[in-house]
Amino acid sequence: MLLEGLRPVAASEPVLRADDLGVLRGEAVFETLRIAGGRPAHLAAHLQRLVLSAARLDIALPAGFAELAVAASEGLDDGVLRLVCSKGAPGAGPVGFAVVTEVPAETRQAREHGVSAVTLTLGLSAAQRAEAPWLLGGVKSTSYAVNMASLRAAAAAGAQDAIWLSSDGWVLEAPTATVVVSVAGELVSPPASVGILAGTTLAVVQELVPVAVRPVSAAELAGADEVLLLSSVRGVAAVVELDGRPLGLGPVGKDLRDRFEATLLR
Amino acid sequence: MLLEGLRPVAASEPVLRADDLGVLRGEAVFETLRIAGGRPAHLAAHLQRLVLSAARLDIALPAGFAELAVAASEGLDDGVLRLVCSKGAPGAGPVGFAVVTEVPAETRQAREHGVSAVTLTLGLSAAQRAEAPWLLGGVKSTSYAVNMASLRAAAAAGAQDAIWLSSDGWVLEAPTATVVVSVAGELVSPPASVGILAGTTLAVVQELVPVAVRPVSAAELAGADEVLLLSSVRGVAAVVELDGRPLGLGPVGKDLRDRFEATLLR
Repeated sequence: MLLEGLRPVAASEPVLRADDLGVLRGEAVFETLRIAGGRPAHLAAHLQRLVLSAARLDIALPAGFAELAVAASEGLDDGVLRLVCSKGAPGAGPVGFAVVTEVPAETRQAREHGVSAVTLTLGLSAAQRAEAPWLLGGVKSTSYAVNMASLRAAAAAGAQDAIWLSSDGWVLEAPTATVVVSVAGELVSPPASVGILAGTTLAVVQELVPVAVRPVSAAELAGADEVLLLSSVRGVAAVVELDGRPLGLGPVGKDLRDRFEATLLR
Repeated sequence: MLLEGLRPVAASEPVLRADDLGVLRGEAVFETLRIAGGRPAHLAAHLQRLVLSAARLDIALPAGFAELAVAASEGLDDGVLRLVCSKGAPGAGPVGFAVVTEVPAETRQAREHGVSAVTLTLGLSAAQRAEAPWLLGGVKSTSYAVNMASLRAAAAAGAQDAIWLSSDGWVLEAPTATVVVSVAGELVSPPASVGILAGTTLAVVQELVPVAVRPVSAAELAGADEVLLLSSVRGVAAVVELDGRPLGLGPVGKDLRDRFEATLLR
């Protein structure tokens, strides 16, 4: 099916040219969605963020991603949908496509049982990316090598995920998730002004429970009652161990996880 | 021609799968070489760096890139050779390829007449990346969106290139080049310990003239007699205007440029 330059492709199909700027320079934007009950979940929020990311990377996003997402999800009960738009080869224009894959077993496991995590510095101060837009804070591009290297560093430390801290001691985000902490009965998540991605899962969770959006210090994180990592496919995953401190699967996280899962079919 | 998983491809040929981790996560490494007189210039140094980059990204680099580079360059008097190795799709193994393109007209222009540049912060302290290897200092990956956004920020400020400074006031590198300054009759370039790429062109230049390798402060840069940007295809390009201050095409840069060009055919 071709949708004016956009199409769903088999994962195994070569789709990008060798001289595509997405391939050579990581100049592509993407969104990862959960497919639930034959539909892409929370599609509007993802498309909105895709548009913002594309503008920051100077990519002329083609129209039709909504239709593409719906078409690619049809008939699938559960799955992962990636919407990708590369800048394309010089002179050739952007290349948009959707890839559907299964939900990895470890993602289901993490959703059910939580993950261990370690804190890692991202090296930047919390204010830095707001002041220097070329550092691309809040942009979901495919230039994710540091994200993936951070996950490998976490694995090398015996953990399953990472939480980035700023150089001046503030909580930022996880390499592929938004951080929410439960402190003294209150849920809190860092603001977009620290240069992080605006979490689509956080936005859904905020429709379910109040979440204060304000800077979270590393000390608050270290002393939190519960720590949650929010992302589209894994949903609400509890951090059951942070920097070696056992946290367990707490009641707030379990409740939020189940309520978030219920939104996927509404 | 197939070289056990490696092959030269036409720029226009789709080569990467939609689920390739190079495409989705910027997990690919690359080198850009000048083709001169039918041969890839300074190939050994580029291959050595490609190996180091691949190790840092946990990519199992296939053998045969030397032969691939030689085969792809044959018969070309002048050109750009990109050697790329993507991590590949999960379970499918790495994908290596070479792409040959023409030297862009603006690159020749810049080599001849120099470029204007502005300084931009990279947000990180000079020591940061040595302490946090997951930030991938010194790794040439395709996660280059910040590099490209920095060049767009420079263009928006009316300049043709950028020089990154650390958050604590030290000169780092340019988005696609190594910085060398001429100060009080001495050539100086920042050390790899500030988290920058080990420049292959700098290594060649160091065989021609002495270049001291030590931290260069932003103040030294601002007061330098000449500022040079070293990269494989553009060669030695003079910064003729820095942050609005005219520097012109100085004698040191001109001499080095011509001597570097002469190495390409030896």
